[in-house]
This record gives sequence, C-alpha cells and structure tokens, in this order.
Amino acid sequence: MSVTTPAGFDAAGIACGIKPDGVPDLALVATADRRPVAAAGVFTSNLASAAPVQVSREHLEDGHAAAVVLNSGNANAATGEPGRRDARRMCQLTAHELGCAPEDVLVCSTGLIGIPLLMDPIEAGIPKLAGSLGSDGAAGESAADAILTTDTVRKEARVPVGLIGTSATVGAMAKGAAMLAPAMATMLAVLTTDAAVTPSALHVALDRAVADTFNALIVDGCTSTNDTVLAFAGGAAGNEPIVESGPGFAALEASLTSVCAHLAAQMAADAEGATKRALVVVRGAHSHEDARLAARAVATSQLVQCSLNGGDPYWGRILSELGASGAVFDPERCDIAYSGVTVCREGIAAAHDGAELERVMGEREIEITCDLHEGDGEAIVLFTDLSHAYIDENRTTS
Amino acid sequence: MSVTTPAGFDAAGIACGIKPDGVPDLALVATADRRPVAAAGVFTSNLASAAPVQVSREHLEDGHAAAVVLNSGNANAATGEPGRRDARRMCQLTAHELGCAPEDVLVCSTGLIGIPLLMDPIEAGIPKLAGSLGSDGAAGESAADAILTTDTVRKEARVPVGLIGTSATVGAMAKGAAMLAPAMATMLAVLTTDAAVTPSALHVALDRAVADTFNALIVDGCTSTNDTVLAFAGGAAGNEPIVESGPGFAALEASLTSVCAHLAAQMAADAEGATKRALVVVRGAHSHEDARLAARAVATSQLVQCSLNGGDPYWGRILSELGASGAVFDPERCDIAYSGVTVCREGIAAAHDGAELERVMGEREIEITCDLHEGDGEAIVLFTDLSHAYIDENRTTS
Repeated sequence: MSVTTPAGFDAAGIACGIKPDGVPDLALVATADRRPVAAAGVFTSNLASAAPVQVSREHLEDGHAAAVVLNSGNANAATGEPGRRDARRMCQLTAHELGCAPEDVLVCSTGLIGIPLLMDPIEAGIPKLAGSLGSDGAAGESAADAILTTDTVRKEARVPVGLIGTSATVGAMAKGAAMLAPAMATMLAVLTTDAAVTPSALHVALDRAVADTFNALIVDGCTSTNDTVLAFAGGAAGNEPIVESGPGFAALEASLTSVCAHLAAQMAADAEGATKRALVVVRGAHSHEDARLAARAVATSQLVQCSLNGGDPYWGRILSELGASGAVFDPERCDIAYSGVTVCREGIAAAHDGAELERVMGEREIEITCDLHEGDGEAIVLFTDLSHAYIDENRTTS
Repeated sequence: MSVTTPAGFDAAGIACGIKPDGVPDLALVATADRRPVAAAGVFTSNLASAAPVQVSREHLEDGHAAAVVLNSGNANAATGEPGRRDARRMCQLTAHELGCAPEDVLVCSTGLIGIPLLMDPIEAGIPKLAGSLGSDGAAGESAADAILTTDTVRKEARVPVGLIGTSATVGAMAKGAAMLAPAMATMLAVLTTDAAVTPSALHVALDRAVADTFNALIVDGCTSTNDTVLAFAGGAAGNEPIVESGPGFAALEASLTSVCAHLAAQMAADAEGATKRALVVVRGAHSHEDARLAARAVATSQLVQCSLNGGDPYWGRILSELGASGAVFDPERCDIAYSGVTVCREGIAAAHDGAELERVMGEREIEITCDLHEGDGEAIVLFTDLSHAYIDENRTTS
C-alpha cells in the first residue's frame, strides 16, 4: 500500500553507503514507461532551502516529471553551489538510467545540514537502484524504508479516488521528522495516483491537501530546509484528465487530503520523544486565519507542551497563549475544555468533575477545545508533549 | 541598592498569608510624602491581561501615581470582574492607609493563573504592610523579597543618572520569570528615581529602555498575562523637570536602560533550569526589524536551545531558523560564529580550529554571531538552553 499501489509506477530502495551502518539510504520512484506525467510539489518556505529543493522547484516548472530520486543520511542543505551541482548530478545519473531528460527527474535529500554530500556511493548506487525498480508492494516498501532517518516505522498510505466510472487510487510514502529530530530529519512525502489530472489541477489539489494536514502538524515549530511533498498523476486509470473545479476534482482533493492526513498522523504517532498526542481545536474565531494563529500558538507553546507531559490541566497557560497569539477576541468570552471537560467558561475557572478530568488527562491522546465565541473561524492542530527524551534526541548530533 | 536608594521613596515587604508557607508575599513602594509623582508603565501585550494590569493601566492614565502594591503567590489573572474588584480593593485599602486617592495607587500580582485571589490575608495585611514602610536599604530589600516566586535570589539594581549640576539615581527591584516558570511566575519590575521628569518624558524613556532589555530576553517565547514594568520619578533631586529630548533626557534614558539590562541579566542568570546562557547577535540585516525577527527566531528555537544544552555546534539549525524567521536575506551570504569561531561562511561550512570550538562550546556563556551582509540592521537577544530541569519545573503546577 505505497507509491506502487496505483497502476503505472515503479519504485526501489537500496543501501548505497551514505549512512555508515549499511541501512537503506537511496530510493527511486518512477513512471512505469519512464515518460513524464503531471506532477506537483509543495516545498519548505524556508529561505535557506536545501539544494535538492531548489533543483526540484526548477524541474517542476513545466508541471511534469518522470521520477524522483531520494536519499537519506545527508540533507544536502547549506552546501552552496557545490550542493546544487551534486543535486543536479543525482538527476542526471537517474535520467541516464531511465532514458529520460534530467529536467524530468526530481530530487529530495534528508539528514544533517551543512555537510557536503558524499557522491561516490551515489554515483555507484543509482545504476544499482534503477536496476532494482519493481512495481509490486515489496518495491514500494523498500523505497519507503530507504527515506527513513530516525523514524522507527515505515510510513505509507493508500486511499481510493471516488471517480465515477473509473477506479483510481492515491498511494504514498513519507518520512516523518516529528519530534524525532526535525531539523536534521526533515519531512518528505511522495504521492502517486493513476488518475489522469492536469498539472495545474494537481498543484491546486495538493496545496489544499497539505494545508490542513502536514501544515497542521506541529512538533517544535521549526520549518526545515528540506520539507517537500511531491505528487505524480500517471493517468493509467484512463479517465478524462481532471481539471480544477471540474468533475472528479473534489474527489481527488479529498483523496490527497486523506492520504496526507494518514501520513501526518503516522508522523505524530512515531514521535519517539513524545508521551502524549494532543489535538487543539480552536472554534468561534473571527476568521479561519485567526483560528489558525490561535491554535498554532497553543501547540507551539513550550509551557503547554510541558503541562501536557505532566498531564496537568493548567488551562491558564492555554488562555495566556491564546491571548498572546495575535488573534483578536475577548478573553472573557472564551471557553476551554480538555477532552470534553470544560475547565474555563467565559475566561474564568469553571466547576467540573475532578475525577473525570483526572481520567482524561491520564490518556495518551488529549483533545483541547477553545471556543472564542466571536465568529465561525475554526482550526485544528495536532501536536505532542515536550519530554526529556526530546531533549536527549536533539542535544547532540553525534 | 533598591527602590529606596533614590531619595523620596519608602518600601515594605511582609508575609500576609497568600503563600501557604509563610514566606513574604506582599510588597509596597510609596512616595515618602504619599503624594503622586510622575509615573509610567509598560504592560504585557497579551489580550488576556490580568486584572491588576487592567486596573494599573486605568490608574496611570493621568501619568501620576503615589504607590504600587504588589503580591506574589497568585496572578489574579483569568478571574474576570471579581478579579478586577479585588485589584481595585487592593488599591483602596492601600490608599486608605497612605491617605491618598485610590486612583493614585497601582497594583501588580504574580503567581498562578485562573485562581480567585484570597482577600482575607490581603485585607489584614495591607495595614500591617503600610505600617512597616521604611526608607532604608532593609526596607527596599524586604519589598524585593516579597515579590519573588520561584526566583532563588533577590533582584535589585541602581545606576546614577548623569545630570549636570544635580546628583540623581535610578533604583529598581524585579522578579524574573525567566526559565523558572514563566506563565505562573511572570515578570515584574519597579523603578524609582529622584530625578524630576515629566510624565510623558518618563513614559518615552521607559518604553525605549524596555525594548532593548526586558523585551530582548527570551526564555520560552511566552508572553505572560501579568508582565509589568513601572517607573516613578519623584523629583527630590531638585533638577528642572526633564522633558522629552530636552537636557538630561538622554542621560535618563541611558540610566533606565542600564537598570533594566542589569535586571534582565539577573533574570537570565537565575534561570534554574538553565545550564547555559547565550547571546545571539544578528547584524548586517536589511533593517533593525529584520534583525530582531531573525534573532528572536534563533533564540526561541527548541532545537537551537537543545543544541546549546548539549554544547553541540550544529550551526545548520541556526541557518535554518534564520531562513524561516521572515527576515529577508540571502542564505549564501550569511556567516555564523560561536564565541568568535566562524563555523559557517557564505552559507556553507567553514574550516575552523576544532579544539578552540570545543573549548568555547564548553563555556557557560556562548555568543552566537550571525552576519547577514545585507545592511545595517542589528539586534541582540539573550536566551538560555532547554534542559530536563525546565520540563520538571513546568510539567505540573502542584
């Protein structure tokens, strides 16, 4: 149930020697006929974007691609012009093996920032990688394995696309930074579908899918240099190509969103340092933008994350973060609840069932609801607690 | 060397019983003749401001005050209309004892959010507090002690004001949230001076003093509900009142800034959870605003704070935070140094003395310099590392 699930895509993953311990570190996803198809990407907004992000952006300008080559173990970020040369070389090597143009190959890297890429193992690895391309589930799994860094489990998802008269699917693989080691692990995802879609429609649908899923997952508020989500639409399903707002577009968008949501949930679940997973739901904001500001402020708060770690229902911190978020509201109309137990009503302490509150705070998953009673704006953000293990994972890179 | 150092101010601190353990929890600073003098305040920007913040803002509208009463052990925040009634009552009780108008008394509270203030100990305590007012150093110290929460040391400062022909001083006391327990401890400071200053000049000078001192101290990026800095200018020095941009104004501003900087440094030093103290200096930004954005992004980053905890010179995270900060610059012109050891030049790894780097990373104080090479914008932010102890201090409030 990975990138090879939709018809028309092959994948492979091998250990080429970038990582010293011989674990898989090089992956490839390509169209079965090696010809370019509609493709779209969403990239990090970080100004200090990695070389592969810069090169993939260029190669996606025409809205088409035939393959993506990915490595783990080194982010090829903060590597300047030599880094871009290395990223382009990865595309060239891959194109040579596949018989397509280098501009039709995308590239992703994930790992430590600021260290030049070792090209020898990659030069030797790419022919071997291309030679092991396969279309079955095992091939998809080996690609998904080769992009992991500190992740403990492989991350894959598949969802059918509800098209009338045709059967189509979205498949995907991802690696999740989450709490593991965000800036060195970064977040990558590759989605494939056999539905036929125009490049512009695919781009719009992917943008929307990412907004409420990957962009609503907060671990430490750090935007990495390498974050990349790519989608390929091969067209093997034989449907009339989906155009923006045309028939099938809503179904496509829903399927992409669903796949991204599955992957985001897997990332949050695989946050090694985390002992708790929380959803903060802000509703009743003046606007969706205000709701998003408020929800993100709560989710990124070290103090809220510490309270979550201790299972402490200290709602005063949540109200304080809402108040400092930039969202406009009257704190004395705000209600706050932990998993359905209202602890603050109209901005002050509310009588509640203490035993029930203690029970829900002891759960591994906690839902924090903040109702601002100002309008219809709503936003949901998924986050985790701040633990000793998070610090231990991130205090040294060696 | 506290609020009683400048001529014309009395202070007191007692244990009235808000805190269960009998430690000092109620403080008062008043003019010696109980008459209002020029006064100014800088308050939290949090929408969910505490009741005492709301009441003090009202009472400062005329630019004059005769006293401030402060309690620790309860923030009187998220307490609604009853909270405002309690804050006003504290002013009334104090005014009654001092023989001034309630509107000339300011009020500050610090402690846990969301819990109604216990008024009985305060009703009984304020007459006792007013009765123990004194003008000596011991009286100033007892006031400074009574506003502490999880602070481990008293925080005071004094700086002369360089006026021509007159001898004047600024004295101050503060309590520092810092890493101890920000949202429950919050940050308070009271400054006094015997210089004569107009209310508007005092306000402008205080605003500027706070911008580069308290507002450049970041521990966890949380803006509390109670943050308050107050200044009183009594005029006992007998100088011609200082007006904005007039003679003595620059000297006053420099002295207020110096006192605030001393207090901010004491707060950072008293951050129990912290094992390291760091300065991030961003220079060469397009503007000061860009420099401030960039420096704050580095200082609030959990990942940078973790690296600091481990003494790990992982500059890739710093470049990544600069890139995500919103400041506009070319990452490939950026240089980064740890305490003078340049590890990144023009956006990529720079050769450096490894032994010297290891030595500076092992120090308790580390200076991170980021030169963007874009313009003249510069900003400095003081911050601390993220440690297990920080989590332990903040995971539960009980």
